[in-house]
Amino acid sequence: SMNPDLASERQTASFSVEKLTAWLDGGAEHTRIRRAVVEAIESDPVFSRENQYFQTQNERYEAAVRKAVHLQKKMHEMGWTEDGPEFKYIYRALSGDIAFLLHRVFMRSISVLGSDKQIAKWIPLATQYQLIGSYAQTELGHGTYLQGLETTAVFDTTTQEFILNTPKISAMKWWPGDMGRSATHTVVFAQLYVHGKCYGVHPFIVQIRSLQDHSLCPGIIAGDIGPKMNFEHIDNGYLMLQNVRIPRENMLNKFCEVQPDGTYVSQGSQKINYFTMTTVRISLISDEVIIPLMKACTIAIRYSVVRRQSKLKPGEEEAKILDYQTQQEKLLPPLAAAYAFHFINNYLQELFNRGYGEIQRKNFDTLPELHAFSSGFKALVTQYCTSAVDICLRACGGHGYSLLSGLPSLYTKIVASCIYEGENTILLLQTARFLIKCFTAARAGQPVPPSVTYLAAVKPEKCPAKNKLDFLCPETYTKAYQHMAVRLVSSTAAKLQDLIQSGVKKHDVWNQCTVQLVQAAKAHCHYITVKNFVETVEKLETKAGIQKIMKHLCDLFALHGIFSNAGLFLHDGYLSGAQMDMVTASYLDLLAVVRKDAVPLVDAFDFTDKSLNSALGSYDGQVYQRLYEWAQKSPTNKQMSPAYERYLKPLLHNTLSKL
Amino acid sequence: SMNPDLASERQTASFSVEKLTAWLDGGAEHTRIRRAVVEAIESDPVFSRENQYFQTQNERYEAAVRKAVHLQKKMHEMGWTEDGPEFKYIYRALSGDIAFLLHRVFMRSISVLGSDKQIAKWIPLATQYQLIGSYAQTELGHGTYLQGLETTAVFDTTTQEFILNTPKISAMKWWPGDMGRSATHTVVFAQLYVHGKCYGVHPFIVQIRSLQDHSLCPGIIAGDIGPKMNFEHIDNGYLMLQNVRIPRENMLNKFCEVQPDGTYVSQGSQKINYFTMTTVRISLISDEVIIPLMKACTIAIRYSVVRRQSKLKPGEEEAKILDYQTQQEKLLPPLAAAYAFHFINNYLQELFNRGYGEIQRKNFDTLPELHAFSSGFKALVTQYCTSAVDICLRACGGHGYSLLSGLPSLYTKIVASCIYEGENTILLLQTARFLIKCFTAARAGQPVPPSVTYLAAVKPEKCPAKNKLDFLCPETYTKAYQHMAVRLVSSTAAKLQDLIQSGVKKHDVWNQCTVQLVQAAKAHCHYITVKNFVETVEKLETKAGIQKIMKHLCDLFALHGIFSNAGLFLHDGYLSGAQMDMVTASYLDLLAVVRKDAVPLVDAFDFTDKSLNSALGSYDGQVYQRLYEWAQKSPTNKQMSPAYERYLKPLLHNTLSKL
Repeated sequence: SMNPDLASERQTASFSVEKLTAWLDGGAEHTRIRRAVVEAIESDPVFSRENQYFQTQNERYEAAVRKAVHLQKKMHEMGWTEDGPEFKYIYRALSGDIAFLLHRVFMRSISVLGSDKQIAKWIPLATQYQLIGSYAQTELGHGTYLQGLETTAVFDTTTQEFILNTPKISAMKWWPGDMGRSATHTVVFAQLYVHGKCYGVHPFIVQIRSLQDHSLCPGIIAGDIGPKMNFEHIDNGYLMLQNVRIPRENMLNKFCEVQPDGTYVSQGSQKINYFTMTTVRISLISDEVIIPLMKACTIAIRYSVVRRQSKLKPGEEEAKILDYQTQQEKLLPPLAAAYAFHFINNYLQELFNRGYGEIQRKNFDTLPELHAFSSGFKALVTQYCTSAVDICLRACGGHGYSLLSGLPSLYTKIVASCIYEGENTILLLQTARFLIKCFTAARAGQPVPPSVTYLAAVKPEKCPAKNKLDFLCPETYTKAYQHMAVRLVSSTAAKLQDLIQSGVKKHDVWNQCTVQLVQAAKAHCHYITVKNFVETVEKLETKAGIQKIMKHLCDLFALHGIFSNAGLFLHDGYLSGAQMDMVTASYLDLLAVVRKDAVPLVDAFDFTDKSLNSALGSYDGQVYQRLYEWAQKSPTNKQMSPAYERYLKPLLHNTLSKL
Repeated sequence: SMNPDLASERQTASFSVEKLTAWLDGGAEHTRIRRAVVEAIESDPVFSRENQYFQTQNERYEAAVRKAVHLQKKMHEMGWTEDGPEFKYIYRALSGDIAFLLHRVFMRSISVLGSDKQIAKWIPLATQYQLIGSYAQTELGHGTYLQGLETTAVFDTTTQEFILNTPKISAMKWWPGDMGRSATHTVVFAQLYVHGKCYGVHPFIVQIRSLQDHSLCPGIIAGDIGPKMNFEHIDNGYLMLQNVRIPRENMLNKFCEVQPDGTYVSQGSQKINYFTMTTVRISLISDEVIIPLMKACTIAIRYSVVRRQSKLKPGEEEAKILDYQTQQEKLLPPLAAAYAFHFINNYLQELFNRGYGEIQRKNFDTLPELHAFSSGFKALVTQYCTSAVDICLRACGGHGYSLLSGLPSLYTKIVASCIYEGENTILLLQTARFLIKCFTAARAGQPVPPSVTYLAAVKPEKCPAKNKLDFLCPETYTKAYQHMAVRLVSSTAAKLQDLIQSGVKKHDVWNQCTVQLVQAAKAHCHYITVKNFVETVEKLETKAGIQKIMKHLCDLFALHGIFSNAGLFLHDGYLSGAQMDMVTASYLDLLAVVRKDAVPLVDAFDFTDKSLNSALGSYDGQVYQRLYEWAQKSPTNKQMSPAYERYLKPLLHNTLSKL
């Protein structure tokens, strides 16, 4: 039976939830396929996540391997293929709770960096899981800066082998997934030495565990790096190499080769590699970042209409907490952001599909822009969504803090996205470098990519808005964002210029501007996100009910951004204090408007109860019953604690006589 | 041996670390006592936290009970008493990793709410742990709003008993510590009914487990609420009561009593209770919030001078990451905040000691101010420190994400402080209510408490600063904070007034202003924190070296606050955009200045390696060696995984022939 406080929220929806879902999926046919995949996965007990919050790291790993192996069978049984329309929904349906993701990266590395001969040898084995691969790049002492890797691979002409070594502890490979316990092989990145000369970092296929009994190969020291904030199901590992010899053929040699006599030959263009990196950053945004935020919003918003606390009006029953302005202020901007980022993700996908087409025609001109976009949006979206999930967690009070709410694990997992695949600050600085370059070019009248042509024009304007309703006009706020982005890029460019002219050395100049460069890069991405949301809503003309609520969300996203970054808009007087008060008024009005459709807006994300795995967020809103049922299953309730016999009994046993 | 990159940081300290430590402790004698306590605790293997990151919830609970029982022996052995100077250092030395904290609350409730007779009966038993107490207030469906509690206690005149019941699932007690597995007794808060009339919430002592064999008493359903984001060592519990009968004498009756015939008698003043609540909020600030932030800063800053990444100058070795401006921007404001909050904590302690004196003289006039302070600062400090710990964690990249860094558990624990002992938003609104009241009174020429007299004066001023150095003058920035706080309080008061005059109902008016009221309350507390930092530094006149670096930290804390809340200062033109650029310039300059003393500044917090329990933060900076050693101890490395035999072997076993 559905909690009546939740049911009443659904009766007043201003739009068709089913139609919104279909639109978000890209059409009703996609919705159908997605649901079929989810149904097939969730009805299979092997994929159950039911007891996940009670499991140890060992148990989680065990389950993830079981699921990965079972998935192969399942795909065969269902007729799903890696090229089929179902494939992209499988990972979502599993909530990423599966092993051998790095095995896929192992395969991709070989496909991209290996010769045809190497591909022919290794890919069939990997495809059938007749070996388990991993990808060993990061070291204990080295992450982002690839040139700094310390692992060595020395070519021995006499035996035609590479000898791999971990020369010091900071050179130990650290973090690779699937490597701590599962992998039999890995791609090791190491400094290549031939005849004493270093040729830089290259990839080598190294076997690390016996195919006979899974024991470590000679010269290999490897294991699990231990407990982490999340990802208990992944065996992130360490690896030391002590004079490990591999045949010359194991260096991935599509682009560079060491010939039998030690001659180093480089061939072809590696530019496509950079494209692969940018693709990875874009592909994680949806599954690892936006979907978790959508889940967190679903949980927190459903809970907030079921939870009643204090009285809003004297004499009435306690109020739903979502009726408090402060609770709306916590949860509705994250909801609007989830939509905003879903749309920017569509935009990025399109951009990359176009870019991929160009690159296949050997035109690499779009690469810098694609790189800047993938870096900046990866950073912006991961950071924003991580904060938003945190807000959702805290907005649920004590119950949000229970693992059974699902929110702690969403948070501890999403926070990693700020670090992996490029640390956010470093990525934003790469975007900033691109922006500064484009700004300089644009000001010099040179052509720049379409997304940054706006940097060419700086007019010392003021916002023309005269009342709070003017700020519900998309052109008004989009222009404000644009103005702000241009101001930050141009003022930072000016600071760079000033410092150089005052004689500061070039590398110091850059470092002294990095705080502001990061601000500028964020401002650019924020502007593009708002602009894209506006354009998405405009294109929706015919779907009246949906367009109206999307317009409200778009306004809310934009005005919340101005309200919470007021200084950036007030700084040069583009907005006046009085105008900021209008923004605030419209922003607070919008909270009350969007609140009415809050539950239908999260229902449209279409998560099943199993995929939320939350005692607070279920579709029927039976929160308290579920918390109680789940808690009883905890291992902490499975036995009389030995602590009683050991420590408490000796204290308590003669109290009776005194009471 | 000490990592040379860390050693070099210590050689250039601009002040005496030992003298700063003594000053922070409140004198060298306190430092001596603290170190003696830490030494005694850390040298005792029973208190070891060595394998904490590898333990299950059951193991953590077990250890916490063992430690709590052992602590009694230890205190006796060491001659430590609850009134002695050592006592306040014990909890810090244990890092809070101990059971029976709610047993202490149980005792305090009886002491404060119980009659002399009740105290004489229960306190001796509790003191000797001949029963284990808990405190059962919060329910599944009810937290902050005490009047909403649903548990009932009906007086039965025929048997002279109260009959306690959980009438529905939302009335189940939920969260009480020590109750899930340990407690034999608890103080239950329930709605008192006599002859069908409800007299509101009252406290009752209820036995829940047998003193003979620890089984649940008749009518009691209780257990552990399961896994949480942290606090694995605490058995937070649930409790259902089904016609549980307790004698009339078990209602705590210092203030209210039910006489044998059912007559309800209320006596004395309960005002002192409110004071107890405020005391709890203040007392948690130091141990649960500021010390964890100090630990996080110590870990992240030491790591940031040991970790090298990329090149700052071409041709040189890779740079310490703390030399990057963006890393300084992440870590140095939290460091300055740790000092700022340490000083505000001293200020609050003094305020409360004075207040306590007044209250003992039956003068309750200071209560509203104390309540507003304890609420506002509890919220401000917990929120700020939680964000700061999060920043420290992310600033350490992948290694910060490993539990072995110590940072994840600092974060997952401190985040709870935003929720418990009063949810932060609700607390800030209580502070805001006080501020609005004082503002109205002050404007009407009525007397107000000294801390808010500043609200009386509003002059439409502008900041007089003319260059970036002017912003290093404490008067300049303190006035800016003051102006900003007055503006937010007064503009929100005006909005409240306007809405009332426009005919909106009173309760709606308040709700529609809560987002801005929260802002105003934060602004007030932020202003007081800056002002108090400035005054603390001024009093330091004679200690030259220390005063100089404290002045830098004070400036940094203040200017970082302006830089990151620029909109609040620009809004009415108190600061111009040009002045904000000066603030930014001075702020960025300060980062480079404070960076030089960053390691000595965290060394002064004087944490032992055992208390940090971090592979990244040890005094000698041997980060990589320690990560490797600790990882090897993980249970994930203790056995060949059964996943191999079950799932991998069948896949891999015939690969050999193909390679």
